[in-house]
Amino acid sequence: MSCLFCSIAQHNIPSEIVYEDDATSAFLDIQPRSLGHTVVVSKTHAETIIDLPAASLAPLFLTLQHVTGMLSRALHPAGFTIGINQGLVSGQTVPHLHVHIIPRFTGDGGGSIHSVVNQPPNEAIAMTAARIRKYS
Amino acid sequence: MSCLFCSIAQHNIPSEIVYEDDATSAFLDIQPRSLGHTVVVSKTHAETIIDLPAASLAPLFLTLQHVTGMLSRALHPAGFTIGINQGLVSGQTVPHLHVHIIPRFTGDGGGSIHSVVNQPPNEAIAMTAARIRKYS
Repeated sequence: MSCLFCSIAQHNIPSEIVYEDDATSAFLDIQPRSLGHTVVVSKTHAETIIDLPAASLAPLFLTLQHVTGMLSRALHPAGFTIGINQGLVSGQTVPHLHVHIIPRFTGDGGGSIHSVVNQPPNEAIAMTAARIRKYS
Repeated sequence: MSCLFCSIAQHNIPSEIVYEDDATSAFLDIQPRSLGHTVVVSKTHAETIIDLPAASLAPLFLTLQHVTGMLSRALHPAGFTIGINQGLVSGQTVPHLHVHIIPRFTGDGGGSIHSVVNQPPNEAIAMTAARIRKYS
């Protein structure tokens, strides 16, 4: 039972890796939504951010920070959409946590993270907050 | 020159905070795109992930992990869209780095992070990768 992103991180499947270290790998998406669209993964297999061991979490996001800086210097985008699709409902296609870095350019016709879904709740947020706080 | 999210994190502006610690704060978005839409911030002011001091980065994403788990247990969504709008071009409206956690529910009619923009490059990704690697 092989994992696509584990295989890429282990160099068992070729990819355009732009940065890697002991704990993480960053490679170009083969179906880029914009110039420089990059995927960042931990070399520790976990399906979601909830499952990733805490020791692997900081290295993943330090690499996200570093690679966002590399993309900024190399490609001079006007901004970035940075995000995670978690679960089939949100479009996660590979069951290995990965962070998309999508460079954004002036006039690209795109939207914000908010354009992904628009199903405002009927419940007042004070009530929702009370439900969530019970799980601190 | 006050910052909205610094003011919320310092309790100078009321909000529905669901989790906080010395370094971070998580509160409900006042214009939720779905039930439980939450915003996570560092108490250290920085406009983008590139600007955030490394010492503040791990706490931010550990809180992201923790609060995603809280939302999962409290609201039982089918998944999440987790993301950052960086820069005006991507829809960043508050110039203080913040991570949106948008719970996703079956049948919510939403898309993936990929639906935010679709401007595939003309350049082969091998060439783009070579340009990016120069900035390791």
